[in-house]
Amino acid sequence: MSAVTAEGRLKELGISLPKAPTPLGAYVEAVQTGNLLYLSGTLPTEAGKAKFVGRIGRELTLEQGAEATRLAALNSLALAQDHLGSLDRITRVVRLSVSLVTTPEFRDHPKVADAASDLLVSLFGREKISTRAVMGVASLPLGACVETEILFEVTNPTS
Amino acid sequence: MSAVTAEGRLKELGISLPKAPTPLGAYVEAVQTGNLLYLSGTLPTEAGKAKFVGRIGRELTLEQGAEATRLAALNSLALAQDHLGSLDRITRVVRLSVSLVTTPEFRDHPKVADAASDLLVSLFGREKISTRAVMGVASLPLGACVETEILFEVTNPTS
Amino acid sequence: MSAVTAEGRLKELGISLPKAPTPLGAYVEAVQTGNLLYLSGTLPTEAGKAKFVGRIGRELTLEQGAEATRLAALNSLALAQDHLGSLDRITRVVRLSVSLVTTPEFRDHPKVADAASDLLVSLFGREKISTRAVMGVASLPLGACVETEILFEVTNPTS
Repeated sequence: MSAVTAEGRLKELGISLPKAPTPLGAYVEAVQTGNLLYLSGTLPTEAGKAKFVGRIGRELTLEQGAEATRLAALNSLALAQDHLGSLDRITRVVRLSVSLVTTPEFRDHPKVADAASDLLVSLFGREKISTRAVMGVASLPLGACVETEILFEVTNPTS
Repeated sequence: MSAVTAEGRLKELGISLPKAPTPLGAYVEAVQTGNLLYLSGTLPTEAGKAKFVGRIGRELTLEQGAEATRLAALNSLALAQDHLGSLDRITRVVRLSVSLVTTPEFRDHPKVADAASDLLVSLFGREKISTRAVMGVASLPLGACVETEILFEVTNPTS
Repeated sequence: MSAVTAEGRLKELGISLPKAPTPLGAYVEAVQTGNLLYLSGTLPTEAGKAKFVGRIGRELTLEQGAEATRLAALNSLALAQDHLGSLDRITRVVRLSVSLVTTPEFRDHPKVADAASDLLVSLFGREKISTRAVMGVASLPLGACVETEILFEVTNPTS
């Protein structure tokens, strides 16, 4: 049992979560059913605007893609914190999906996706780490280069 | 507590659900586990044929893309009604996934996806609204321009 | 009730599952929450290397795409067997997602995806068959032509 919690790790690492994104349409950012917390897909946005636009491998480097992926995941965490009150209610990261806009010949999706996975590991520890599905997509809302979608297992089910 | 149910709203709005699509291969259209109802991805088909073929932003306008998305979502609802007997057994729309075939420069995915979200809101109300993940994909079965996939929370778990 | 179990069917059919893939990054291959077993996306790899690289419809034929899809699904099953000890703990295949790298004009995704679905049916029987979502994506890790992701309902929930 880890003495340091996810909220504690946030502070230790000096990470301040961004303001949680607001929906781009007629949906909500989080739905809890039983002890599963579903989040909407999040983009590398700041204040509602895409910060990383283009294809990884052409307009954006692998490093920029990774930075964008970390930002998208931070936005997901901000949603979770908003919904739950505290990240410490998360008992497991179940699934992380990372969709990347890349050039056709790009093959280093796992390296880019690790920017999100590494962030999750640093907060929740290796024992709560998620499954992962990564793919290259053709386009994303706002022209963003990445979308992350996270499913959490949480305490205190609402139903 | 809303006095009007989803089935009641269908009638009020004069929406008649299409005949539920049949599988294009060795799978089923709905699986319930606990109180989660998973549906297969649905396309903008009528009688098994894709009605909207092409890319949104080139062969198809944004408006046609939205019409196609609404049709795909109606097909999802037809599956749910078939499986559950009544849409009134749905307690929450948990997740809506919308995959769109667009031109590379297309950025208005949220507007197109809202055709599905707005439909769901009109039937289930704002308090049962879903999370959402939207992406542009390279191609879809039958050449269709959109696929929707919906996860519901339902009453009367079978297990 | 079927007298023949999934492990029994594996033997009958002479299928030996490959060695389970190992993660390409900071994630795990399986997470169980309640009686749902989530698996990471799997590729048509052998010993960590992609065996089928390219686009279905150009560098690869439909038949090669199907062979690749079957291999990816076998890798998913190897993960499940590793995690559960036995495939006989699977009570239902809930969802199969198949992401294919194809030419833009390709429309036969269902035929390719059936290579995974047919495998699952041959092991678990028609009564445990899954929902399915199939899409054409722009690119995949390692240049692979297909990724499968499977969600199982299993016995003996851990939480």
